[in-house]
Amino acid sequence: HAVRVNGLACKAAKEVVAEDFYFSGLHVAGNTTNKQGSAVTAVNVAQIGGLNTMGVSLVRIDYAPFGLNPPHTHPRSTEILTVLEGCLHVGFVTSNPENKHFEKVLNKGDVFVFPKGLIHYQYNNRTTGAVAIAALSSQNPGVITIANAVFGAEPSIPAGITTKAFQVEKSTVDWIQTQF
Amino acid sequence: HAVRVNGLACKAAKEVVAEDFYFSGLHVAGNTTNKQGSAVTAVNVAQIGGLNTMGVSLVRIDYAPFGLNPPHTHPRSTEILTVLEGCLHVGFVTSNPENKHFEKVLNKGDVFVFPKGLIHYQYNNRTTGAVAIAALSSQNPGVITIANAVFGAEPSIPAGITTKAFQVEKSTVDWIQTQF
Amino acid sequence: HAVRVNGLACKAAKEVVAEDFYFSGLHVAGNTTNKQGSAVTAVNVAQIGGLNTMGVSLVRIDYAPFGLNPPHTHPRSTEILTVLEGCLHVGFVTSNPENKHFEKVLNKGDVFVFPKGLIHYQYNNRTTGAVAIAALSSQNPGVITIANAVFGAEPSIPAGITTKAFQVEKSTVDWIQTQF
Amino acid sequence: HAVRVNGLACKAAKEVVAEDFYFSGLHVAGNTTNKQGSAVTAVNVAQIGGLNTMGVSLVRIDYAPFGLNPPHTHPRSTEILTVLEGCLHVGFVTSNPENKHFEKVLNKGDVFVFPKGLIHYQYNNRTTGAVAIAALSSQNPGVITIANAVFGAEPSIPAGITTKAFQVEKSTVDWIQTQF
Amino acid sequence: HAVRVNGLACKAAKEVVAEDFYFSGLHVAGNTTNKQGSAVTAVNVAQIGGLNTMGVSLVRIDYAPFGLNPPHTHPRSTEILTVLEGCLHVGFVTSNPENKHFEKVLNKGDVFVFPKGLIHYQYNNRTTGAVAIAALSSQNPGVITIANAVFGAEPSIPAGITTKAFQVEKSTVDWIQTQF
Amino acid sequence: HAVRVNGLACKAAKEVVAEDFYFSGLHVAGNTTNKQGSAVTAVNVAQIGGLNTMGVSLVRIDYAPFGLNPPHTHPRSTEILTVLEGCLHVGFVTSNPENKHFEKVLNKGDVFVFPKGLIHYQYNNRTTGAVAIAALSSQNPGVITIANAVFGAEPSIPAGITTKAFQVEKSTVDWIQTQF
Repeated sequence: HAVRVNGLACKAAKEVVAEDFYFSGLHVAGNTTNKQGSAVTAVNVAQIGGLNTMGVSLVRIDYAPFGLNPPHTHPRSTEILTVLEGCLHVGFVTSNPENKHFEKVLNKGDVFVFPKGLIHYQYNNRTTGAVAIAALSSQNPGVITIANAVFGAEPSIPAGITTKAFQVEKSTVDWIQTQF
Repeated sequence: HAVRVNGLACKAAKEVVAEDFYFSGLHVAGNTTNKQGSAVTAVNVAQIGGLNTMGVSLVRIDYAPFGLNPPHTHPRSTEILTVLEGCLHVGFVTSNPENKHFEKVLNKGDVFVFPKGLIHYQYNNRTTGAVAIAALSSQNPGVITIANAVFGAEPSIPAGITTKAFQVEKSTVDWIQTQF
Repeated sequence: HAVRVNGLACKAAKEVVAEDFYFSGLHVAGNTTNKQGSAVTAVNVAQIGGLNTMGVSLVRIDYAPFGLNPPHTHPRSTEILTVLEGCLHVGFVTSNPENKHFEKVLNKGDVFVFPKGLIHYQYNNRTTGAVAIAALSSQNPGVITIANAVFGAEPSIPAGITTKAFQVEKSTVDWIQTQF
Repeated sequence: HAVRVNGLACKAAKEVVAEDFYFSGLHVAGNTTNKQGSAVTAVNVAQIGGLNTMGVSLVRIDYAPFGLNPPHTHPRSTEILTVLEGCLHVGFVTSNPENKHFEKVLNKGDVFVFPKGLIHYQYNNRTTGAVAIAALSSQNPGVITIANAVFGAEPSIPAGITTKAFQVEKSTVDWIQTQF
Repeated sequence: HAVRVNGLACKAAKEVVAEDFYFSGLHVAGNTTNKQGSAVTAVNVAQIGGLNTMGVSLVRIDYAPFGLNPPHTHPRSTEILTVLEGCLHVGFVTSNPENKHFEKVLNKGDVFVFPKGLIHYQYNNRTTGAVAIAALSSQNPGVITIANAVFGAEPSIPAGITTKAFQVEKSTVDWIQTQF
Repeated sequence: HAVRVNGLACKAAKEVVAEDFYFSGLHVAGNTTNKQGSAVTAVNVAQIGGLNTMGVSLVRIDYAPFGLNPPHTHPRSTEILTVLEGCLHVGFVTSNPENKHFEKVLNKGDVFVFPKGLIHYQYNNRTTGAVAIAALSSQNPGVITIANAVFGAEPSIPAGITTKAFQVEKSTVDWIQTQF
């Protein structure tokens, strides 16, 4: 019979403790041993219940050498990122019809903004790793990795749609789908 | 020295006329003679100044036989669509990590909702045209067509990023980029 | 023990299906055999649970010859309407002290905006029927038909109040109240 | 070249003075010598520039004996009212289809809430005057007095519409229109 | 198994009665026999369940001669206050780095605005009592009395922090803490 | 004649460049040679114009040994902080009447949330420096340092008010005021 806000269970006010506003471990590098060579460690309302309704969350992003946080959107959030270690090539693309690409090379201590809902990426084009901290304007921002959502959806988006959308052969779509 | 709200010029209250809330032509089919075989006619704050701050807008979408309104997102809006003529295969994909694909075949008079910021599409898999009207939860919803934003950005997203993101050869990316 | 948002029961994420975003039947004309000669078919959060928190909804409005969608407000919503068939005389009135009346004759394909909370109407002053689709900037916009709320409230607003408010005889108020 | 927010001119921060947050005169009774026997003294963003974006405003309402603040809505605001002097019969009516009428007799020190956008009124059914203070959930709430907006709009709503909407004779509408 | 919104139990629509929008007693002076010589009588969602989601609430504030409503903030609300009886010296202070103090002497019928989240106070520097009514832009505004929160927190904020923050001796902090 | 949003000048869309979303220097330690032994480097809409309307910002906070970021509030923002280097004793205090103090010792990689508008602090009770990055849920969060606003306001809050509010001698207030 728990009280709920935004569909999440709330504790009675008297039972709330400091730990409800706390998370440990953002200093630990994520495991970047994957195809994209990057790892996102999220600290949002799923990790800290006390963030509910608070409209902000954090992520740590680790990048292996040549690691990529591939093109993605946050359906409910803007992002502001700062580089802790290394160097990142970052960018975002605006809406139709311009599809204007804003890009920048970021060094340690640089900050960059990815406006709400736009497709953006970070790429480590160096032989050494990189680390960033980013803040998001929602306690539950969501992440839509474009390639995963388009080519890795379950069940699959019919090949007739993806081939037409990307103007490629069905064999290309089949190949991409095996990757996600 | 115009007064502005949301960066758009406002008329003095005394000068506002009924035409400021009016648009004509949504009964006219858009030109679907293009690669995707679809056309979107938008009626938002760019067409009707009086929509500013009102939080809603309309579009008419025409589909040629086998026409596709390709995977896209609205960075600031939910969409609710109803089919006026024909039959549409529609779907949307949820965020990471599920990337769950919800799809449905819609006939005349059917209504479907594409939640805020999620990738969605409509496909006319018939030999006759189709028409839909859709409403969006913003007077300035924006449209990010995935293929155009990723492969048609100006300037281009570096091929090293898109090949890694989609796990394809550079020649495939080069080919796709020539299409957008 | 269902999870609830906005007071409405939510399904567990794993149990959500495409039908939760779906409604069928907006192509069917409403029954306009009533005193006003109009019928509104609503598609909001009451019909599509997946619209909850999404901030938009649809209605279909049918008008018999000389049918009227009488003066009303949406307490939580702007409306944008497009005419699918026929011709409508539409209008809205601004707040005190101007009470400025904006009106327009709409033909097929015309679009008109009724700003949030203002009294508005649509009238079919032709001998043939008319049909419109309208979008509202809330998943739960509400409808306050002025005559019904003032003269058809349950229990009745005391006649001393309505006679004074409208500056009419009690017999007139009594007559109007029998109509609603 | 003034900076503007919500279409209103802002002062430079350095030029802002305490008077920009100040209004004088809410202790003065309004002139209730009018047909309705009531007077509203508003203190919103039009009177206090510093209220802009602040989401709240005040009104003082004076009621002559048998004075009425006639049925009206605030298109952008809830209202919470407290009686300073006298006794008031107050009420509001919910949306379609219930049109449920909630009413209450308020005495000095009583508080009542009129939910956002709903039609409401206050009536002084005593032989002595009454005074109330009310707060609104917007710095620019707007007021739509039903009778004025429907029967006193400029230009008039066509009689064919109002007669049908209220199910009365044209002569009745003509009479009412002469009152507003 | 009650339906809840914002963590508060909602009644079924059919069971809602006028009393759910009603509170009685705002004409009764609060007990100002305390160190500060003031008393706040709140009418918010805790007193009127029907205020939930409505974005506004009221308070009555009584001031003994030389009574003080000490410096405080409302973490979720702007305040607009009007003096019913007496005379008040009021003020608020802006954010860093200016910390600009706006102050004003208010007489009966004067109105003053305390912008959202800023520290503000009202002081009755007369030998007679004073009364004010204030509205807040939230149904649940919260009140943080600075002295109580800083020196009366449970458990205490360590003295090392408060002595450094206020640049005072530990004995001074110890003294202040015994007062709250 | 610049277009303005939220009172800030906007660039024409065609003139926007990547630098409008960029800031450099968050890796540089702030100067903590001050009474409190801490320094805040802010990256909000004042530093990055492209953050306007985006609802999020960053700060870097440096702490000398025994440095204190003294009790303060953000009138328009929640804060989520992560420790990059060192160890911090942090806490916040809830509203009246509980004034409950939640506190926690944070080590490198720990994350803590300070809910919207509440008084909070961070204290470095070690002999080595500390560094934190924090995100705020507004592009213009504001900072109200309690001691500065109460005892360093310009012009001063009258001593009669502060002595009564904090229950201290005038000489104590005079002393504190000389510190700010």
